[in-house]
Amino acid sequence: MANIAKKVSWSGRGEDRGERTPLLNGAEDGKYNRKDIVRSRPKEIPHNEKLLSLKFESLDYDNSENQLFLEEERRMSHMGFRCLEIRRWVICGLIGFFTGLIACIIDIAVENLAGYKYFVVKQNIEKFTELGGLSISLILWAVLNSAFVMVGAIAVAFIEPIAAGSGIPQIKCYLNGVKIPRVVRLKTLVVKVFGVICSVAGGLAVGKEGPMIHSGAVVAAGVSQGRSTSLKKDFKMFEYFRRDTEKRDFVSAGAAAGVSAAFGAPVGGVLFSLEEGASFWNQMLTWRIFFASMVSSFTLNFFLSIYHNKAGELSSPGLINFGRFDSDTVQYNLYEIPLFIIMGALGGMFGALFNLLNNWLTIFRIRYVHRPCLQVMEAMLVAAVTATVSFTMIYFSNDCQPLGPDHTEEYPLQLFCADGEYNSMATAFFNTPERSVRSLFHNPPGTYNPVTLGVFTLAYFLLAVWTYGLTVSAGVFIPSLLIGAAWGRLFGILLSVIASSQSIWADPGKYALMGAAAQLGGIVRMTLSLTVILVEATGNVTYGFPIMLVLMTAKIVGDYFVEGLYDLHIKLQSVPFLHWEAPATSHWLTAREVMSSPVTCFNRVEKVGMIVDVLSNTSTNHNGFPVVTHTTGHDEPGKICGLILRSQLIVLLKHKVFVERASSRLIQRKLQLKDFRDAYPRFPPIQSIHVSQDERECMMDLTEFMNPTPYTVPQETSLPRVFKLFRALGLRHLVVVDNENRVVGLVTRKDLARYHMGKDGLEELHLAQM
Amino acid sequence: MANIAKKVSWSGRGEDRGERTPLLNGAEDGKYNRKDIVRSRPKEIPHNEKLLSLKFESLDYDNSENQLFLEEERRMSHMGFRCLEIRRWVICGLIGFFTGLIACIIDIAVENLAGYKYFVVKQNIEKFTELGGLSISLILWAVLNSAFVMVGAIAVAFIEPIAAGSGIPQIKCYLNGVKIPRVVRLKTLVVKVFGVICSVAGGLAVGKEGPMIHSGAVVAAGVSQGRSTSLKKDFKMFEYFRRDTEKRDFVSAGAAAGVSAAFGAPVGGVLFSLEEGASFWNQMLTWRIFFASMVSSFTLNFFLSIYHNKAGELSSPGLINFGRFDSDTVQYNLYEIPLFIIMGALGGMFGALFNLLNNWLTIFRIRYVHRPCLQVMEAMLVAAVTATVSFTMIYFSNDCQPLGPDHTEEYPLQLFCADGEYNSMATAFFNTPERSVRSLFHNPPGTYNPVTLGVFTLAYFLLAVWTYGLTVSAGVFIPSLLIGAAWGRLFGILLSVIASSQSIWADPGKYALMGAAAQLGGIVRMTLSLTVILVEATGNVTYGFPIMLVLMTAKIVGDYFVEGLYDLHIKLQSVPFLHWEAPATSHWLTAREVMSSPVTCFNRVEKVGMIVDVLSNTSTNHNGFPVVTHTTGHDEPGKICGLILRSQLIVLLKHKVFVERASSRLIQRKLQLKDFRDAYPRFPPIQSIHVSQDERECMMDLTEFMNPTPYTVPQETSLPRVFKLFRALGLRHLVVVDNENRVVGLVTRKDLARYHMGKDGLEELHLAQM
Repeated sequence: MANIAKKVSWSGRGEDRGERTPLLNGAEDGKYNRKDIVRSRPKEIPHNEKLLSLKFESLDYDNSENQLFLEEERRMSHMGFRCLEIRRWVICGLIGFFTGLIACIIDIAVENLAGYKYFVVKQNIEKFTELGGLSISLILWAVLNSAFVMVGAIAVAFIEPIAAGSGIPQIKCYLNGVKIPRVVRLKTLVVKVFGVICSVAGGLAVGKEGPMIHSGAVVAAGVSQGRSTSLKKDFKMFEYFRRDTEKRDFVSAGAAAGVSAAFGAPVGGVLFSLEEGASFWNQMLTWRIFFASMVSSFTLNFFLSIYHNKAGELSSPGLINFGRFDSDTVQYNLYEIPLFIIMGALGGMFGALFNLLNNWLTIFRIRYVHRPCLQVMEAMLVAAVTATVSFTMIYFSNDCQPLGPDHTEEYPLQLFCADGEYNSMATAFFNTPERSVRSLFHNPPGTYNPVTLGVFTLAYFLLAVWTYGLTVSAGVFIPSLLIGAAWGRLFGILLSVIASSQSIWADPGKYALMGAAAQLGGIVRMTLSLTVILVEATGNVTYGFPIMLVLMTAKIVGDYFVEGLYDLHIKLQSVPFLHWEAPATSHWLTAREVMSSPVTCFNRVEKVGMIVDVLSNTSTNHNGFPVVTHTTGHDEPGKICGLILRSQLIVLLKHKVFVERASSRLIQRKLQLKDFRDAYPRFPPIQSIHVSQDERECMMDLTEFMNPTPYTVPQETSLPRVFKLFRALGLRHLVVVDNENRVVGLVTRKDLARYHMGKDGLEELHLAQM
Repeated sequence: MANIAKKVSWSGRGEDRGERTPLLNGAEDGKYNRKDIVRSRPKEIPHNEKLLSLKFESLDYDNSENQLFLEEERRMSHMGFRCLEIRRWVICGLIGFFTGLIACIIDIAVENLAGYKYFVVKQNIEKFTELGGLSISLILWAVLNSAFVMVGAIAVAFIEPIAAGSGIPQIKCYLNGVKIPRVVRLKTLVVKVFGVICSVAGGLAVGKEGPMIHSGAVVAAGVSQGRSTSLKKDFKMFEYFRRDTEKRDFVSAGAAAGVSAAFGAPVGGVLFSLEEGASFWNQMLTWRIFFASMVSSFTLNFFLSIYHNKAGELSSPGLINFGRFDSDTVQYNLYEIPLFIIMGALGGMFGALFNLLNNWLTIFRIRYVHRPCLQVMEAMLVAAVTATVSFTMIYFSNDCQPLGPDHTEEYPLQLFCADGEYNSMATAFFNTPERSVRSLFHNPPGTYNPVTLGVFTLAYFLLAVWTYGLTVSAGVFIPSLLIGAAWGRLFGILLSVIASSQSIWADPGKYALMGAAAQLGGIVRMTLSLTVILVEATGNVTYGFPIMLVLMTAKIVGDYFVEGLYDLHIKLQSVPFLHWEAPATSHWLTAREVMSSPVTCFNRVEKVGMIVDVLSNTSTNHNGFPVVTHTTGHDEPGKICGLILRSQLIVLLKHKVFVERASSRLIQRKLQLKDFRDAYPRFPPIQSIHVSQDERECMMDLTEFMNPTPYTVPQETSLPRVFKLFRALGLRHLVVVDNENRVVGLVTRKDLARYHMGKDGLEELHLAQM
């Protein structure tokens, strides 16, 4: 089981172990593993929903306010803080700029590659339509697709598996406070960008929007730290921001910038970041995020306008362009509202079906498709099948439409149609998905016939289900929109048939938009941010209210059946994800039941040997250690006087900040915050630090380095109260004390994430090291 | 000084004292009053910016998780919680519905009254234009205006002074956690609605949008509690929601619904609530707020469509209708961006000037215009002057414009213009401000001549400065937009003159919109929410990016000079308002310096006499009392074991929950949560509770009622850390303990709000009972 999970899980491949912290390696043989085996043996399914993985570390959104930190802050003048603030704005500007630039690169690359591919295939088809032997065209198409996808899949599967998929679940987890290994590295970004270009150009049922969010986050993490570990380059800038608190804020900005660039939706981006990530809302932070979003959208717009030789005409703010809904056709009537609600409910159901099918498929993949070469082959297979299905459907469709005078179609396939006509099915399949969505939204009534749409919906639905979760870098937004737009348009056409041919209100484009919203909402279950994203992407506010209604209904209906797609994938990875609130019926649990105990504590002045032993001990499972003072003897727990982190101890050991026992042979170097920042975020493992036998006898004074005022709660505190404190402040460790202030336990993320609402009330997940 | 402050302050008139809690009455002769006198004597200005009022109580966003509460929560099933959740949604729906309805009533009333007024005056003017003797028309106009305003001002000044102004600063304070007396009462709502109708119909330079936010908040507070104290009616519904935590959430929804109804901007409403109020972002709460906003906008839209005899055509989602910007004219170029930034800077400067002037005027009013009759007279004077200025400017303006074939003007005044022409100045003045804004946005180029616009801007700017802060119920949004639209249009006209007559890009309507955004942003300093509000109100997304730029610039430039208008008014009231973060340079302060001490504590089992004495003691200044156990004797402070609130003690005393000392004569009635909820939020004063001499000797067991797990911090905790905990969790009391868990101090809102960033670094405000 461990082997299987390893291959497909976000934490990547086995050979990366050396890079992980010793804690996680060590703990594999530890008590939790034992527990896990004992508990999970009765279950036969390797990927059990009732498991919570221990391999994920947490981010610390709470500053360690130790003496060094306070001294620095107190030394800093008012002007100093202002400079910091300006630097934060500059970083957000840079994040926006680079994210926009990346979006621009993706867009241009995809457009050219896909354009070339469709050009070649179209010429081939036209050649063989008269000659006969269209199977050669099919093979050409399938081979081209597979080739693109293969290159992308190889990059992802062999170089950086974390770059697979849209990256949105991973970013959600990161913003939630879970450290996903390698998710914000430069290498990941490069593979992601390259992968998404290949998979979109390869004609898969995927979009290039989701990956932008991940890309933005990586850019943010990189820029804000002023260095790249992959490139081994430290620009010595922005050193103040080298801690989890600041980094997470910037990553929120990056995610927002990504959404903004993907959909041309700066406000939607901000809301996405807040809806998915933030717990504590801070006005200044929100404005910075907003600024990053604006810059990102603007950069994309600017460079694309230059690329399109219309420099200065800022008309493409996002990767996707839904086209403009004209003001005179944009309206809806009161009696359409029930129809919209029905569409929302349909979207919720189709979305739930999508998620359910994809969930099963993902479990299947986790079990059987875990070797990189198998993954690449699956991706190529999907690409070939996609081409074949598309071709077959175009071939057998006899839905010919007159070619309008304005040539809105980019690659109109005549095929067996009469001259001056084109194959309507081909506009849906023989196109990048973005263009297909736009056609469905804006082509005049009568462009598609209902059978075409119905068949297309079904085929594309199944393809999209199959595609999401492949080892390629790609998003699910656009396929969802496309499926929804197709059945929405079908819905609109049927309506206008039922109502009367004269009624102008049943504009199929409008229903296509609502269907797209419903389907996407049913799959990803976002409401507020998605409403704004769709409104910004369509450039029209009038449909805001119906879109809201549709999304709200889709969410309610969908949630009745199954969770959202991202949440399902997070759950499959057993990530200790904290929701917004503790489960409603968890008031009977208190900190005493929830906490881990006993806790390994250190004394204020502790022996080096003792510290090294504790850190090296593989059964320890915490990254934070309370520092205590003993008043009455070592039998009972000591009184809390601080909290020190593993990372801090490692730095102390590395710099040998020891107090000599006998004489003062060594001149003790004064450690500075800079030393901690330089080591952030990849602190060396304890094994790499050599401590001699003599040094083991030295003492370490932790007073200066520990956080002297950690948050504590009494044992009787109810779980919701603990949860609220933990979540609102983004804590990593919460010390549980008795009424004498003695340490009795420690609450960490897994202790809280363990409880969740099941079908029969409160359920407890098992902890497992996998 | 106390006398002066009393008359104009938000806490209202002196005779209301009986209704306030005893604490505040009592404390007036207490130590803080003494301190205040001592400290403030050297200052000559009565309204000193360096004061912090002690008269405001705090809301408690932290549940008191005592045994009763936990028992109730634990008894409740999963289904029970689901029902609660559904009830919350129903309440939000009702809030939206009633808020929309109120907006609808205001709109219809204003339209009819103002329509009638303009009709009468127009006829009169037309009559006297030929006959001569237009001064009679002027007098008629002035008298009509003054009459309307008088009625509104009397209602506000004599019945409910808290209904004055837009109510936005008050709602900001409420959402921040400050209890402003009577701000969410039914009476306030009635006076507010009546007042705003009168003042808008009275032709003042005011809008009806700001008051909608206050109205929505009152509706929310009323509906969510399922009863009205003003009407003495308890519907026995929603009793679970009778506590500060839940009520504040609903008030956020109400404020959002108000914004939504005012501007037709549901997303903007949500963002407004979050930007102004929320600290902890909760997804479910956000969705409920969003739902309330949607319903509110829809209700307004629906009823207005019926009123306009176009039932079902949902085209007026908000009170204000900026009109639609056509897609073909909606575009901007790269080289316009610097121009927009210049406009933003101008808006920031004009806004700062507005705020500065209004601030001086408000201080003047606080000093000299504090008697209700004076206030009414000032309001009437302003109304008459507004009419006179308008009339004079229309009279002396000779800007005649041809009357278009489409008659976009509602009341075209011909005056001295030739037949078929109308006076252009009159479209700006002889109209409700909303219509004037719309004309400035949409009238074709050439409709206004630059001199008209310049003179109008200046005159209206001064009128608006004078008007805001009058004792009438009215908002500042629309006048700000109007001023901005006027100078923005002027800017556009000048641009097109400079550039060339052929350039079509310098559409004056576009620049009017940017000017409006700049001016409003410069005055109120909102960015994210205002961007979305303006985008939703104009129904156009294309201008989103320039609007953001303009608002951001306006905020940065404006903040350089002076704070936003609402913040200034909050400061003038010396409200203990908590900002988002502690001042940057406050790391050298610790809980020890910040806290109030010594603290009055109770024992777990306390003598009734002691409790009554403490509660009646007028020098006590806290509403919460730590409950302690003494281990070593009464000399040193006891160990914390809980926290009990004044309100809880009052209820206990009222129900005589005493433990008899000698015998068990009385059968002790088991108190339930319901008893506390019934008393919420207006707990009786201690004076009204009679406790006999015998009863004084009884004991009270507080164990069941106190919160056994209050949040505590050690003495060494830095101020930013204390602040973060306090703000993120919305606390009212934070207990400071030593390392033995003994109570050494208590931190409340005023202790934190006291420190703020001044020009020369950290400043400390003086506490004053006023």
